[in-house]
Amino acid sequence: MISIKWAKLIKSLQLKKHRKAEQLFFVEGEKAVLEVLESGWTVRALFATERFIAAQPQAIKAAQLLQACSSDELVKCGTFSSNDAALAVVAMPQWPAFSPTATSWTLVLDNINDPGNLGSIIRIADWYGIRHIVCSPDTADCFNPKVIAAAKGSFLRVQLHYLPLTEVLSHAQQPIYGAYLGGESIHQLSLNSLGGYIVLGNEANGISQDVGRWVNRQITIPAFGNAESLNVGIAAAVICDNLMRLTAQSKESNL
Amino acid sequence: MISIKWAKLIKSLQLKKHRKAEQLFFVEGEKAVLEVLESGWTVRALFATERFIAAQPQAIKAAQLLQACSSDELVKCGTFSSNDAALAVVAMPQWPAFSPTATSWTLVLDNINDPGNLGSIIRIADWYGIRHIVCSPDTADCFNPKVIAAAKGSFLRVQLHYLPLTEVLSHAQQPIYGAYLGGESIHQLSLNSLGGYIVLGNEANGISQDVGRWVNRQITIPAFGNAESLNVGIAAAVICDNLMRLTAQSKESNL
Repeated sequence: MISIKWAKLIKSLQLKKHRKAEQLFFVEGEKAVLEVLESGWTVRALFATERFIAAQPQAIKAAQLLQACSSDELVKCGTFSSNDAALAVVAMPQWPAFSPTATSWTLVLDNINDPGNLGSIIRIADWYGIRHIVCSPDTADCFNPKVIAAAKGSFLRVQLHYLPLTEVLSHAQQPIYGAYLGGESIHQLSLNSLGGYIVLGNEANGISQDVGRWVNRQITIPAFGNAESLNVGIAAAVICDNLMRLTAQSKESNL
Repeated sequence: MISIKWAKLIKSLQLKKHRKAEQLFFVEGEKAVLEVLESGWTVRALFATERFIAAQPQAIKAAQLLQACSSDELVKCGTFSSNDAALAVVAMPQWPAFSPTATSWTLVLDNINDPGNLGSIIRIADWYGIRHIVCSPDTADCFNPKVIAAAKGSFLRVQLHYLPLTEVLSHAQQPIYGAYLGGESIHQLSLNSLGGYIVLGNEANGISQDVGRWVNRQITIPAFGNAESLNVGIAAAVICDNLMRLTAQSKESNL
């Protein structure tokens, strides 16, 4: 049974203000909970079915508190429509302040609203080895349960920094690429550095004017057909794929 | 007011068996309804708010029947959580039988279950100028309202063919690329044709064995970080982007 106190707390953590006040968030589902248990992050409490507990005698030791419960209880407290495994209440990590290096790529998100898109972008960053995402303060909260679910464990490996974008970009030492319609084709691009910033704009309105002023290379995914646009997560993946391909090629040709 | 008869019919069209029996499906929301009205497809009936009707006096003429209604009624009959514009009941198109040409790319979907993923893949196909998608019979139905919503009008420009994949692939005259973990990197690929098949597998299980037997080039999106996998829609976009880039480069170098 999940105790009343914890059930209340978990439910409250669906809202950003409670997550912020408690400095806690939760992770749901077998795979993601296992990853967080093995990550070294502080797992304040683990709520798990008997099956999960029996199957993971080692992993569950990482939790500071363990309560066995039914899958119905997991569904009632959490956000999944089914969960026959576990839910973990986790302490927010203390990420060091953002400090980019000359050869690193950083994603910059200007008011990405949809938690599914943000989660998807975190997973893409992790795939492409991008360790840092700078988010405008109005971007969706990365500890929102929908973001955590969509990020599929990648939230453990990518650091998010909520900062005023114009301030960050005005101090940038590396090129600032921005995703626009009608910029340079990413299929024709030649890089002038082995790192930089990749700015992605809001789902409906693109990159805001204030942020756009700092972009020094407008880039575009070439269209071969008639669709008007791509989803921002899809665009992030295609842009990262091209920039990481070009970076690897530049490194190779310098060897 | 939406008449009782139509309200019942629209609701029934949420299920595949009724869509199949009636040969009808529906499209929701301002942008997609406008696109379908302007497409030449047969719009059997249009249900629209007074605002939409007043704003689109020309476009609405394409509908065989028009009923003014409230946005509440649109929400009640349809699947959107808000819709202050319109819902169109549309006749299923009669697409000609699938017949690939030597210089065309075809997407092949092996049991893609999630309607959101299928819709996203249709939009990506449209962006990259891919006109045909062959789907295994167990792939999500392309006239499912969630697919139509995720495809954002691109369902008007991409033809879907539900066919036994092994039969189609066994008659293939072009190379068959399949997305796997551990195949050739799409960043290192050299094409041996200006067209072909791109096979994408099920979200959880990948390409089935029966279908995989026909794949003659296993391809992979190179990972630069630690994420275990990418969503199938994301993978489709990155693979299409690379193959269309390479196709364009091959065409150019032959000029």
